[in-house]
Amino acid sequence: MLSKATIKYIQSLQHKKFRDEHHAFLAEGPKLLSELIQANCFECEMVYAVSEWESAVDQKILLNGNIRVQIVEDFELLKISNLKTPNLVVGIFKMKIPQEHFDIKNRITLVLDDINDPGNLGTIIRTADWFGIKNIVCSMNTVDCYNPKVVQSTMSSLARVNLIYTDIVEWLSKSKSVQILATTLHGRPLKDIHQLSEAILIIGNEANGITDDVLNLAHEKITIPKIGKAESLNAAVATSIVLYELTRNA
Amino acid sequence: MLSKATIKYIQSLQHKKFRDEHHAFLAEGPKLLSELIQANCFECEMVYAVSEWESAVDQKILLNGNIRVQIVEDFELLKISNLKTPNLVVGIFKMKIPQEHFDIKNRITLVLDDINDPGNLGTIIRTADWFGIKNIVCSMNTVDCYNPKVVQSTMSSLARVNLIYTDIVEWLSKSKSVQILATTLHGRPLKDIHQLSEAILIIGNEANGITDDVLNLAHEKITIPKIGKAESLNAAVATSIVLYELTRNA
Repeated sequence: MLSKATIKYIQSLQHKKFRDEHHAFLAEGPKLLSELIQANCFECEMVYAVSEWESAVDQKILLNGNIRVQIVEDFELLKISNLKTPNLVVGIFKMKIPQEHFDIKNRITLVLDDINDPGNLGTIIRTADWFGIKNIVCSMNTVDCYNPKVVQSTMSSLARVNLIYTDIVEWLSKSKSVQILATTLHGRPLKDIHQLSEAILIIGNEANGITDDVLNLAHEKITIPKIGKAESLNAAVATSIVLYELTRNA
Repeated sequence: MLSKATIKYIQSLQHKKFRDEHHAFLAEGPKLLSELIQANCFECEMVYAVSEWESAVDQKILLNGNIRVQIVEDFELLKISNLKTPNLVVGIFKMKIPQEHFDIKNRITLVLDDINDPGNLGTIIRTADWFGIKNIVCSMNTVDCYNPKVVQSTMSSLARVNLIYTDIVEWLSKSKSVQILATTLHGRPLKDIHQLSEAILIIGNEANGITDDVLNLAHEKITIPKIGKAESLNAAVATSIVLYELTRNA
């Protein structure tokens, strides 16, 4: 049986303020939980699961990870879950300390200018991980990467990609030794850029694109050529296509 | 003032059963409304808006489209909106009759095998429109394209792309004169396919990929090469990258 205080604590982690205070975040569902535990990147504080999960899970994973599990009833899971249909298990993990200083040479680094939609950020993190991107620099107004909806859509890629939140104008100003590309609607056609093993790629906000201060720091504006009539591409889609092209001959 | 019956009718359109019964669907927000009205593809049954919207909207658009507007109070908009934060205006549009028979020669046609997530379908439709795709063939279990979440994320691309729902095994069996490509995790690297001006491209379900019956009908399996470690790509992201590559030299 979960205490009222425990329920309150878990529910509080749906809000950034309390996640930051406790340095902890939520992850749900058997697939994500077992991936996060095996990735062994985030310390697991506690797992709350219905008995059905416990009897199905690979006990070795729990033993190896030294994972503490508390069995809960369905009605309790409903209280602590952030999903409309709770999915057997909720885990609390400790945030990792982001690596603020990292190499920008010989690699592609992603810079996000106010990505607001949690699903978009999650998809961007997962796609970045697919293409071997190690570091993502987020503007201070980009949605929190530990937001439950972001966590659910990154799957375990959140464990492999380093995200920092900073003043991106300042960060880009210090990073001009590497070619800075900005994805816009009116730039050089993407395929003219050829493969780059070293670049900084800026992706703009879903509705407003890249802010002028940030755009001014780019060495080159690039564009995904439009054949049909859609007004714009989704931010995660644009990121994916550019990362594909930049690594196309890798 | 909205009558109870009107509120009930509008709310009913959040469900596929009633959308099909009334051949009508909902769209919300000033940007989407004005795009849909100007695209002049779906007949507009009625617009319900707060007075703030009416004073800001371009009256010419309303006149040209012969649009009927009923002004509502904020509390009424809240009742008929499908959004957590209603966005000034809700429109009811008549569905268009899908074009069941269309040319598959000299063009790329998309086939969706059980895409479940409304956001994914919306993004796929919008991306297809960007790359000039005219027709999308959806399996019967693919989410309804008039689902409010799909409509919101397609923006006006829904007006330009023809979607049909059918038995895709049967449809593919009759379409083998055109090269059928299936996006999978273990196929030929995408860039080896070169540009194609004629193809049928199959995209699988988010969790389970393409069903065996469907996969058996493909002439070639293709794969987006993985450099990093993510387990899979989001379905809309995979669609986008393949469409980009196929039309790369268009």
